[in-house]
Amino acid sequence: MNCLALRYGDNIIVIDAGMMFPDAELLGVDIVVPDFSYLVENREHVRALILTHGHEDHIGGVPFLLSLMNLPVYGTALTLALVERRLEEHDLEEEAEFHEVNPGDRLEIGPFGIELIHVTHSIVSSVALAITTPLGVVIHTGDFKVDPTPTDNEPFDLHTLAEYGKRGVLMLLSDSTNVDRSGYTESERAVRPRLEECFHRAEGRLVVSCFASSVHRLQQILEVAAESGRKAAFLGRSMLAVTEIAHNLDLLDIPDSILLRPQDIMQTPADKVAVIVSGTQGEPMSALSRVAVDNHKHLSVRPGDMVVLSARIIPGNEKSIYRMINHVARRGAEVVYGPMNPPVHVSGHASIEELKLMLGLVRPKYFMPIHGEYRQLAKHVSLARHVAGPALDDAFVLETGETLEIDAQGARRGPTVNVGRVCIDSGSVDEVVEDIIIRDRRHLSEDGFVLPIIAINKNTGKNEALPEIVTRGFVSLEDGSQLLQDARQVVARTLENSTAEERTDWGVMQEKIRADLRRFISKQTSRRPLIMPVILEV
Amino acid sequence: MNCLALRYGDNIIVIDAGMMFPDAELLGVDIVVPDFSYLVENREHVRALILTHGHEDHIGGVPFLLSLMNLPVYGTALTLALVERRLEEHDLEEEAEFHEVNPGDRLEIGPFGIELIHVTHSIVSSVALAITTPLGVVIHTGDFKVDPTPTDNEPFDLHTLAEYGKRGVLMLLSDSTNVDRSGYTESERAVRPRLEECFHRAEGRLVVSCFASSVHRLQQILEVAAESGRKAAFLGRSMLAVTEIAHNLDLLDIPDSILLRPQDIMQTPADKVAVIVSGTQGEPMSALSRVAVDNHKHLSVRPGDMVVLSARIIPGNEKSIYRMINHVARRGAEVVYGPMNPPVHVSGHASIEELKLMLGLVRPKYFMPIHGEYRQLAKHVSLARHVAGPALDDAFVLETGETLEIDAQGARRGPTVNVGRVCIDSGSVDEVVEDIIIRDRRHLSEDGFVLPIIAINKNTGKNEALPEIVTRGFVSLEDGSQLLQDARQVVARTLENSTAEERTDWGVMQEKIRADLRRFISKQTSRRPLIMPVILEV
Repeated sequence: MNCLALRYGDNIIVIDAGMMFPDAELLGVDIVVPDFSYLVENREHVRALILTHGHEDHIGGVPFLLSLMNLPVYGTALTLALVERRLEEHDLEEEAEFHEVNPGDRLEIGPFGIELIHVTHSIVSSVALAITTPLGVVIHTGDFKVDPTPTDNEPFDLHTLAEYGKRGVLMLLSDSTNVDRSGYTESERAVRPRLEECFHRAEGRLVVSCFASSVHRLQQILEVAAESGRKAAFLGRSMLAVTEIAHNLDLLDIPDSILLRPQDIMQTPADKVAVIVSGTQGEPMSALSRVAVDNHKHLSVRPGDMVVLSARIIPGNEKSIYRMINHVARRGAEVVYGPMNPPVHVSGHASIEELKLMLGLVRPKYFMPIHGEYRQLAKHVSLARHVAGPALDDAFVLETGETLEIDAQGARRGPTVNVGRVCIDSGSVDEVVEDIIIRDRRHLSEDGFVLPIIAINKNTGKNEALPEIVTRGFVSLEDGSQLLQDARQVVARTLENSTAEERTDWGVMQEKIRADLRRFISKQTSRRPLIMPVILEV
Repeated sequence: MNCLALRYGDNIIVIDAGMMFPDAELLGVDIVVPDFSYLVENREHVRALILTHGHEDHIGGVPFLLSLMNLPVYGTALTLALVERRLEEHDLEEEAEFHEVNPGDRLEIGPFGIELIHVTHSIVSSVALAITTPLGVVIHTGDFKVDPTPTDNEPFDLHTLAEYGKRGVLMLLSDSTNVDRSGYTESERAVRPRLEECFHRAEGRLVVSCFASSVHRLQQILEVAAESGRKAAFLGRSMLAVTEIAHNLDLLDIPDSILLRPQDIMQTPADKVAVIVSGTQGEPMSALSRVAVDNHKHLSVRPGDMVVLSARIIPGNEKSIYRMINHVARRGAEVVYGPMNPPVHVSGHASIEELKLMLGLVRPKYFMPIHGEYRQLAKHVSLARHVAGPALDDAFVLETGETLEIDAQGARRGPTVNVGRVCIDSGSVDEVVEDIIIRDRRHLSEDGFVLPIIAINKNTGKNEALPEIVTRGFVSLEDGSQLLQDARQVVARTLENSTAEERTDWGVMQEKIRADLRRFISKQTSRRPLIMPVILEV
């Protein structure tokens, strides 16, 4: 969930505001966005939000940031259109102040002069930023690869970068995603031969899944479909929305009369159909997941059909993706996925040789790797030291919330600021899930709960009946009935053995009951359910 | 969790009884083993359990099977020693009837003549089985690769397989794990150059992690350590146990005076130490995970040290492994992991060309792929048809519980039998977790619980005070206090609006309260906590 603040005196610009999907242990959390406390505390100094490109991990947090403060937002047409779609979901689109910019544009925002530099990436209309400050130039690469043959013939603007490098750059912040990969990332064009082979070989329907935002990939699929005489249908909410956006912006060229309505897919001869669906990551409600279990109203996959996954597996999604592929295989279709030569997918991020090129072109005084886990950032720093040698003054791996301060004397780590993550349940802006709630859910998920209920007579101060015990997720009623009977006795004994004084303090009683019951349950079952004694005055 | 029953008339032999680690959605489950109901129902016909090798996914279910029935167990010395270790954990080792066998041995069990054939795999002492039945020979490969240069110079016994193939084989069951990989799996010896490079390059301590059962790998690490003048220490419970077992069986040769006690690691010069630790999969309590967060009493990793992960990433473990690597990187150590050339890890399973060799040597009449997900089994069938052409009569992908029947007329799918999975919480044989419990835990993990408690006066049949509501994992007390106050009113209204007759039926009242409260909460928060009304008679 990329988000970086650049501050000079009383002026702050924010670069990107992404989201991420939660780890499995964030139970019941739908998405995670940055904690924007630092920006809120400095609200009067924040001048603008600048977006490098339209991927969710760079724009998904925008609705949450804009709900906290009004802010001018700068981005290319596609980036802003994708943000607008998200804002509409939150009814925030009216208030947003959008500024459409193009590669080559220069912005003046407070003390910052910002030039947008065209880069190649897996989504079109991506830019790097060259930010001129009174202390020198800061280059932020955004996400990039150096594609020598992009499908839209819009090459990476190496010349402008070289120009900055020649004049001298204070600091480079560079994408670290693929620092583990040797060599060069293949060009987007490299998938074309594999797509052609699939279209040629499929006897029945050809189903291709890729990220909806991969406009270049979609363009190639449509072109190959046209050449092979197949009509094309789009399936999936995001696929329909994004292709419409890209088409309206003249970024996606849809060949004449190639489009097939989803409802006509099954009425068209199978070998004349290509279906382009969203859901490469096995998301449970996605079009492809529904197709896989034969539960989509417009498409049923059969023996002879071919399903092509033209996307990478995002770490953490392996199991759901393989489960989906297994279901498709059960339908008798061939599934094309994973590494192969020629590739069915290429990465949008620079491999080691491209990262070296970036370091060599920009020749920064300071280096800070961005966009990667710690292991990747650390490796990128080693690479930078190796490439630049003594020309590199210093390099810094910063973790979330850490700051770097630069002045005339040089660069050094600054104080840590208060940032972190905000967990969102079910997509609405308000529904923040606090850490304590997630901790409780995790505890509940492991061994369930045991809730002893003690009714105390408010006149006598005594419990008149045996305590009740309510439980779920712990033991089955069958296995557990004796255990629960015994547990009631344990609670009753704790009550009996307490002094009159203890009994008047419910907090003390709850703690004593919890401790005794925990010991009993742990001894009997070696489990640790959440135990929460309830005392009712009746 | 591999487990296969082969039945002829009233005689059943069982091949392997594995376990698996649960998917993330099996909340609070520690391990999963097969449901052995079919074997229990046919207990009087089950003659023997035959184990192909000592990996957990082939032997981890043995304690659970043996706790259900006494059964002679056949396996090589290492396999049985590893099973014994598991049985000791369950206090079952006294009762087990072990028969140590060697590659080349032939067993007669009822109508089955079983020859054990030496295969190469990532654990030593692995065998395939050639099972002669009255209907013909069934070959079960177990797990294998065809390593032309195994480190112990014990080659795959291709000759015996070829002999069976020449005489005619009824059916082949073959390992499908790597059917997605083209070419040949590299020899175990291929990791040696990389290990040498790491030992040569590390300035400080060298920490190597691999599976404890990879005896060949451990042998190579020890040899390289000896050559480079480093002492070696083992860390981790399974590493210590398995190396001791392998050493006692003369399968692991520990060079003279190379061993260092764990407590001496930090007192020895850093460049004279190699530490061999378990925990390649980022298991939270493993030695390597504790080292990563600098919480191991015998080893602290520092800048200049190198940590080598000589193992594959098991799908599903990516996040915890990368988290562990990030922690090691934060300690300033270099981490060597992932694909590279020469490799730091090689697979133990056959790639496509080896699978073709197996099919070509055995030339079975029928083929059934084993050991893989559906997508891999389906691909293996395509491969078999491609290799064998019309010589292959038929091929079958069977899922868990499905059966295949063969008689003089041929092979066909039989009825499905009652099998599945058994979820175990915390390792003891008894602690089976039922599906309903896991369903409750999943529900609790998503939105927590809301528990309205109504105290009804047993004399008047009325609730005297406002109902209480107890909740965890749902809303924070701060945000939720108004919501919970309103919810109490909702419950009170439901009570008021009920007829006297309804009030006498607690089941009805609980259902009404649950329905009204669910509607109220869903409208206010769009969440769906587990709602469980409790009615107390006081």
